Amino acid sequence: MGTRTRIIIIGYGNVGRGVKAAIESNADLELAAVFSRGPDRVRAELPGVPVFGFDRLEELSRGDVAVLCGGSKDDLPEQGPLFARRIHTVDSFDNHSRIPEYFAAVDEAAREGGKVALVSAGWDPGTFSLQRVLGAAFVPGMRTYAFYGVGPAGGLSMGHSDALRTLRGVADARQFTHAVPEAIERARSGENPDLKPGDMHWRECFVVLEQGADAARVEKEIKEMPGYFAPYRTVVHFVDADELARRCAGFPHDGLVVGAGQTGPAGAANAALVEYRNAWGSNPEATACILAAHARAVARLAAEGKSGACTILDVPPAYFSPLDRAALLRDFM
Amino acid sequence: MGTRTRIIIIGYGNVGRGVKAAIESNADLELAAVFSRGPDRVRAELPGVPVFGFDRLEELSRGDVAVLCGGSKDDLPEQGPLFARRIHTVDSFDNHSRIPEYFAAVDEAAREGGKVALVSAGWDPGTFSLQRVLGAAFVPGMRTYAFYGVGPAGGLSMGHSDALRTLRGVADARQFTHAVPEAIERARSGENPDLKPGDMHWRECFVVLEQGADAARVEKEIKEMPGYFAPYRTVVHFVDADELARRCAGFPHDGLVVGAGQTGPAGAANAALVEYRNAWGSNPEATACILAAHARAVARLAAEGKSGACTILDVPPAYFSPLDRAALLRDFM
Repeated sequence: MGTRTRIIIIGYGNVGRGVKAAIESNADLELAAVFSRGPDRVRAELPGVPVFGFDRLEELSRGDVAVLCGGSKDDLPEQGPLFARRIHTVDSFDNHSRIPEYFAAVDEAAREGGKVALVSAGWDPGTFSLQRVLGAAFVPGMRTYAFYGVGPAGGLSMGHSDALRTLRGVADARQFTHAVPEAIERARSGENPDLKPGDMHWRECFVVLEQGADAARVEKEIKEMPGYFAPYRTVVHFVDADELARRCAGFPHDGLVVGAGQTGPAGAANAALVEYRNAWGSNPEATACILAAHARAVARLAAEGKSGACTILDVPPAYFSPLDRAALLRDFM
Repeated sequence: MGTRTRIIIIGYGNVGRGVKAAIESNADLELAAVFSRGPDRVRAELPGVPVFGFDRLEELSRGDVAVLCGGSKDDLPEQGPLFARRIHTVDSFDNHSRIPEYFAAVDEAAREGGKVALVSAGWDPGTFSLQRVLGAAFVPGMRTYAFYGVGPAGGLSMGHSDALRTLRGVADARQFTHAVPEAIERARSGENPDLKPGDMHWRECFVVLEQGADAARVEKEIKEMPGYFAPYRTVVHFVDADELARRCAGFPHDGLVVGAGQTGPAGAANAALVEYRNAWGSNPEATACILAAHARAVARLAAEGKSGACTILDVPPAYFSPLDRAALLRDFM
């Protein structure tokens, strides 16, 4: 094992903590520093770790790769280009419709700085994107579908939970996304159905009301919220704070990519089915683990002299592994 | 779309036919020629296609990438190095324990010729290998298990069917591999069980006896066959030729990779589960489709000036797709 790759964590919330844990599980990575908008809070949590505010960018020289752990709405559109100009980066930008424009902005900054910037790492976008590309490439015409909350508990959606908490009369809330089993079976069948969002998922809300709030009004406002809930079958449970804490602990999430198609000559074709599933006790820790492996890959791309933005689709998979080619050929092929 | 990549098929059996069909499903690929040990038979099947014997290697100049469709036991150990010296190649060498030595032999030949040779493409080795590497890289300590014949019909094993047909008194036979559901659940549980081959699979044989053969002796010989059947629970059905044709048509196969591990800090870890499944109506066509996409990737690696042997682990996934970066960022990430 050569020198360890020095990782800088940018933003220390749930994903940042997960990256720290992931670094500790990877012998070839080490934590060099943390950057935070609230460095005092982080210093208290991480004694012995160098922690800096965003006014100390010269301290980025302590690291090889920065892992950007901020959110896609407000943090990354600013931080992605800011850091990619100065250090190799990895982030988990997950606003699918804006990935092309985000990629372009980060690409320009990274090229100017001669850095590698890997964007949109994680599971979706990320490993799910990889499966979508491989499915369509290996089985021409294969259409892929992504489902979330396939397991019985469903998947906790932070964005939808936040949306519930914006409503008047809501003290706290969690939203679990559930896949519709019949839609999964239709995707598996190979009929390539046109599935609308509301055909594929339903939404389960656990809501703690403020004292004296009108449950009927809150439920109606939830079910009619455009984009978030209106297109879906939505079930609302009103619970007290204790029950919310008990039933909705942690950040579980899971998902499933299904692709169905055909192989062989037209008219004599055979069914082809590919599925990729993951299930995480902690969604932010899972994202963090994937980010850490991408940091390793970015260090290798940088060592090759690459620069500019890239995604998981541009990385030779061996670069994610700490093992060398001989070990991979022997034990993993 | 630029110039099409010209593909040469080496060996025209079930996989070779599948590669021809796959080329017809990929607008950026074209069939340039077929090489066969029995060129006359292939010419009769493929009017209008240039078909050559192995004595006409100068005709390889008609193509950009050769897809080697021979078997791993007898064909590829000889053909892999032979062709990799002369043309960029893709093959599906699938004898797992011999991959390192095969890789080394092909690597030497490909380097001498300045060619790219992608070995062991397919689903296992191949996409399953990719999932094993990503699982262990993204979730340190994750152990992965591969199961075959997960669906109710099981998966047809050509090697085991051939082994049955070597027995005295057997006129014809098919062997279906079945995963043991309890073993899949143990792998999913995260207990990282030590599973022996016989814990993970059982084997179902459909055997047509020759006139007058002793069924009891044949069944005993099957169940005691070392390596192939002795380590497994094995069920033997004696059927007539009509029933064999009806029940055992085609080449269906399927498999499942299961990886379970944990994320987060030691002592406060969360469960992590990853699964990858595929199910194929035609195993050779599926392998062929995957080989065709690898031929596209090899042409791109060659255009970059690469040479030597490689595997799926060395290929940026975007290279498998006919789509450009803008389309992949917009529609697949």
